[in-house]
Amino acid sequence: GFASGVKKVTLIPGDGIGPEISAAVQKIFTTANVPIEWESVDVTPVMGPDGKYGIPQAAIDSVNTNKIGLKGPLMTPVGKGHRSLNLALRKEFNLYANVRPCRSLEGYKTLYDDVDVVTIRENTEGEYSGIEHEIVDGVVQSIKLITEEASKRVAEYAFQYAKANNRKKVTVVHKANIMRMSDGLFLRCARDMAEKYPEIQFEERYLDTVCLNMVQDPKKYDVLVMPNLYGDILSDMCAGLVGGLGLTPSGNMGLNGALFESVHGTAPDIAGKDLANPTALLLSAVMMLRHMELNEHADKIQSACFAVIKEGTHLTGDLGGKAKCSEFTNEICAKL
Amino acid sequence: GFASGVKKVTLIPGDGIGPEISAAVQKIFTTANVPIEWESVDVTPVMGPDGKYGIPQAAIDSVNTNKIGLKGPLMTPVGKGHRSLNLALRKEFNLYANVRPCRSLEGYKTLYDDVDVVTIRENTEGEYSGIEHEIVDGVVQSIKLITEEASKRVAEYAFQYAKANNRKKVTVVHKANIMRMSDGLFLRCARDMAEKYPEIQFEERYLDTVCLNMVQDPKKYDVLVMPNLYGDILSDMCAGLVGGLGLTPSGNMGLNGALFESVHGTAPDIAGKDLANPTALLLSAVMMLRHMELNEHADKIQSACFAVIKEGTHLTGDLGGKAKCSEFTNEICAKL
Ligand SMILES: CC(C)[C@H](C(=O)O)[C@@H](O)C(=O)O
Ligand SMILES: CC(C)[C@H](C(=O)O)[C@@H](O)C(=O)O
Repeated sequence: GFASGVKKVTLIPGDGIGPEISAAVQKIFTTANVPIEWESVDVTPVMGPDGKYGIPQAAIDSVNTNKIGLKGPLMTPVGKGHRSLNLALRKEFNLYANVRPCRSLEGYKTLYDDVDVVTIRENTEGEYSGIEHEIVDGVVQSIKLITEEASKRVAEYAFQYAKANNRKKVTVVHKANIMRMSDGLFLRCARDMAEKYPEIQFEERYLDTVCLNMVQDPKKYDVLVMPNLYGDILSDMCAGLVGGLGLTPSGNMGLNGALFESVHGTAPDIAGKDLANPTALLLSAVMMLRHMELNEHADKIQSACFAVIKEGTHLTGDLGGKAKCSEFTNEICAKL
Repeated sequence: GFASGVKKVTLIPGDGIGPEISAAVQKIFTTANVPIEWESVDVTPVMGPDGKYGIPQAAIDSVNTNKIGLKGPLMTPVGKGHRSLNLALRKEFNLYANVRPCRSLEGYKTLYDDVDVVTIRENTEGEYSGIEHEIVDGVVQSIKLITEEASKRVAEYAFQYAKANNRKKVTVVHKANIMRMSDGLFLRCARDMAEKYPEIQFEERYLDTVCLNMVQDPKKYDVLVMPNLYGDILSDMCAGLVGGLGLTPSGNMGLNGALFESVHGTAPDIAGKDLANPTALLLSAVMMLRHMELNEHADKIQSACFAVIKEGTHLTGDLGGKAKCSEFTNEICAKL
């Protein structure tokens, strides 16, 4: 298994603040003696023999071989024909479930206390199918594609996640009152899967109801599973409850590998100035360590990170502090 | 115009708590000497000559003649073939824009102060097209339909609303990074309309970003305009910020009429017990009065309602008080 020996991990440092927060994570991992070896790759699209832009083969090969990767924020190239690189990666590696835990951090005050929810998002289809047509002038249709296969797979992942992480409840989020067939299928797959996990509580809720309840009382929820777009929305909303995308980790789980990433932007305005907050990428890397069954390392690094945030003396600007990225990083290293 | 003479208004009392909150509104209107005459109609679907269930003709005729209506909550009949009655009404009367103002109420404390946002939702198409197919076993598609006509119409409504109500900014909410053609069309229509209203600030934001920012700092937003489903979500979320659907009004604007409604449920558990909170329906009725240019009556009733909530001595159970619906209502009447 993963637990013994040195394992290679693909690193996609990303754009903007990506390289500096990646370096911060690498430094912390080295200090913690994490038994992995980084393989850095560049995913900037290159033109292939067919004249189309795509992810460089070396990057694809690295992820396919290592089956595990960590990724910083990516800029989407401007211009027609470029879809989001983030999406291209999800597709290329068939990363079918996107997992985003959102927990209140002690010491970092928001309007909400004790938030502890996990959104699990179908990551390959739904409203993200990319299938669109202009029927006649001024009339456009986009297709939301829901398959039994992908719905079952993500539902299964959600229940397995709940079980493995001692969570009590899975809520399926849907609008099957409106999209009776598509969300209806997703809902049925979740319902069927729920029967196989009688020890996990299961509930069905409308998306609008969840949005309303989430801002009033996030403690109503535990693990949530849903189609692609709903996950995009709810995960950002939940991140907002605990302090934003700079603090929340994310994992993309695939059949043949997993890619962990911070989902904030590239922040070009502060890039290269040693001002960025590496927390989201670091906590994503911690999720990655758990996935690799390096739990002790994960616990140690997570505790150090949480302790520095709780102390509040070495916080970066986005957290209301004055520390540089390197100072925040060094403080975490000092605790290891 | 509306301002002189007695005008007939269609009243759809609705199900569950609908009749009692409707009676509360009627009592308050009578006390305030509002120059309208109510025409009560029942919209419970009846079987037509074609064997299909539909809204009774008398109800349709009433709305079409009066061109204005107030509606309590409706139960959706159980069983296949019944789509939501609320949706059927939106469709029947071509109610193309759904307007939901969400304001913090003085005296009713939530986590957020001074929220003052208005969601304007395209109300006839988008993800609510109702067009779905099972392509092969286990593969379903739902069609999101965006037309230039409906997008322009709702964008125009949003800017006119902003102008008429002295609002500073309109934000168009979209996922045109994902649904490039459909949300792209919606976005372009909003952009084009913005050019005709240079006095109103205009901004474009991704739906996920709005969800994140809204829970952190709702003051970032003013008037928001968006496709159907996004409006369903954001309006509920914003309602949550100020206390829930029991406190927020809603108006459905059509080409030939307008229907104002409370969007909370029928609350069958407390129906008939004089425990319901009529605020959402009352504030919807106040919106209706403004639409009828009966602004003085609107102001008077709204002030009385806000004063009772602020005093806090006659609140219904959902607001943390012990008053009956009738006591809350009488207290408002006493202030008129
Ligand atoms: C960058 C964008 C394409 C992406 C999405 O819409 O999924 C982002 O919002 C996310 O949540 O990962
Ligand atoms: C009742 C339901 C069909 C409706 C919707 O989804 O639009 C409701 O949530 C609303 O917001 O009016």
